[in-house]
Amino acid sequence: MNDKQKLSETRIAGEVIFEGRMLRLERDRVLLPNGSETYREVVRHPGAVAVIALQDQEILMVRQYRYPIARETLEIPAGKIDPQESPLNCAIRELREETGYKGTMELMGTFYTTPGFTDEVMHIFLARDLVWDPLPTDDDEFLMVEKIPWSEALRRACQNEFSDAKTILGIMLVQEHI
Amino acid sequence: MNDKQKLSETRIAGEVIFEGRMLRLERDRVLLPNGSETYREVVRHPGAVAVIALQDQEILMVRQYRYPIARETLEIPAGKIDPQESPLNCAIRELREETGYKGTMELMGTFYTTPGFTDEVMHIFLARDLVWDPLPTDDDEFLMVEKIPWSEALRRACQNEFSDAKTILGIMLVQEHI
Repeated sequence: MNDKQKLSETRIAGEVIFEGRMLRLERDRVLLPNGSETYREVVRHPGAVAVIALQDQEILMVRQYRYPIARETLEIPAGKIDPQESPLNCAIRELREETGYKGTMELMGTFYTTPGFTDEVMHIFLARDLVWDPLPTDDDEFLMVEKIPWSEALRRACQNEFSDAKTILGIMLVQEHI
Repeated sequence: MNDKQKLSETRIAGEVIFEGRMLRLERDRVLLPNGSETYREVVRHPGAVAVIALQDQEILMVRQYRYPIARETLEIPAGKIDPQESPLNCAIRELREETGYKGTMELMGTFYTTPGFTDEVMHIFLARDLVWDPLPTDDDEFLMVEKIPWSEALRRACQNEFSDAKTILGIMLVQEHI
């Protein structure tokens, strides 16, 4: 019996609990490696992108209110992937919507945000050579752009002064590559 | 009008869509900064910890099957916080359950995993001075411990060879502090 056979879990049955605007909740009955059964609750998500946008040694960040945590955050621009949209095109669109800028895009990394309960995948891009080419923001999105010196952003990422994983991780990943 | 007033969203009403073993899904009607209304779908989560456990220049990692993404991953030990449990006690318990070791714990950072749709917060601890003191693993958890040289783990984190955010971010955060 190889490792994969020892660890993997098999879906027996499942139901969609909720199908929303943003996410779908499923509850599956699964067969465990030891032959017993359990339930797994899974949030299905379309995937997302986030962008480190650099201009003149500064990074463009967005201040916004995050309803789930009931507080304002300062994050790198980010958003959900639309149906049939590529991560690259999503990155270009989200950066234009949230900051007004269009730039060259380079993929820095891809990871699962929290694979214990969701399949959400996050692609981090580095944007450079920015030119002004805005798109309107979403109707229900309210944000303010802030420019932060890159050295300051790096210090704040290392000292855990930003509040979300993709922002800290994105800044640290880009620092390894530029 | 200050920034907070301009950006914040106010709950008008809400319903619990699903209350599961692991998470609760809520759907709230909210008032937006411009006076219009929308719905916000929120996954309520008890919070989690993850542990970078170092022993003789090696890091203890766990291989496990992640049902939401239908694949095996190699991650740092992690788990949900029990009711009334502190993040520190959770870190001590999870490391004992998943690897068999108990160690000194130092908080490295705290962040939201994906604040667009959940309040899940993740606390990352650094564990050192490990001694063998195992606890039984959860009934529905199947995993294998692997020891990886720290230099190798750092290289893999920087080159995006791990698959989840907390593992990559935890390794990079610890490298900044040791």
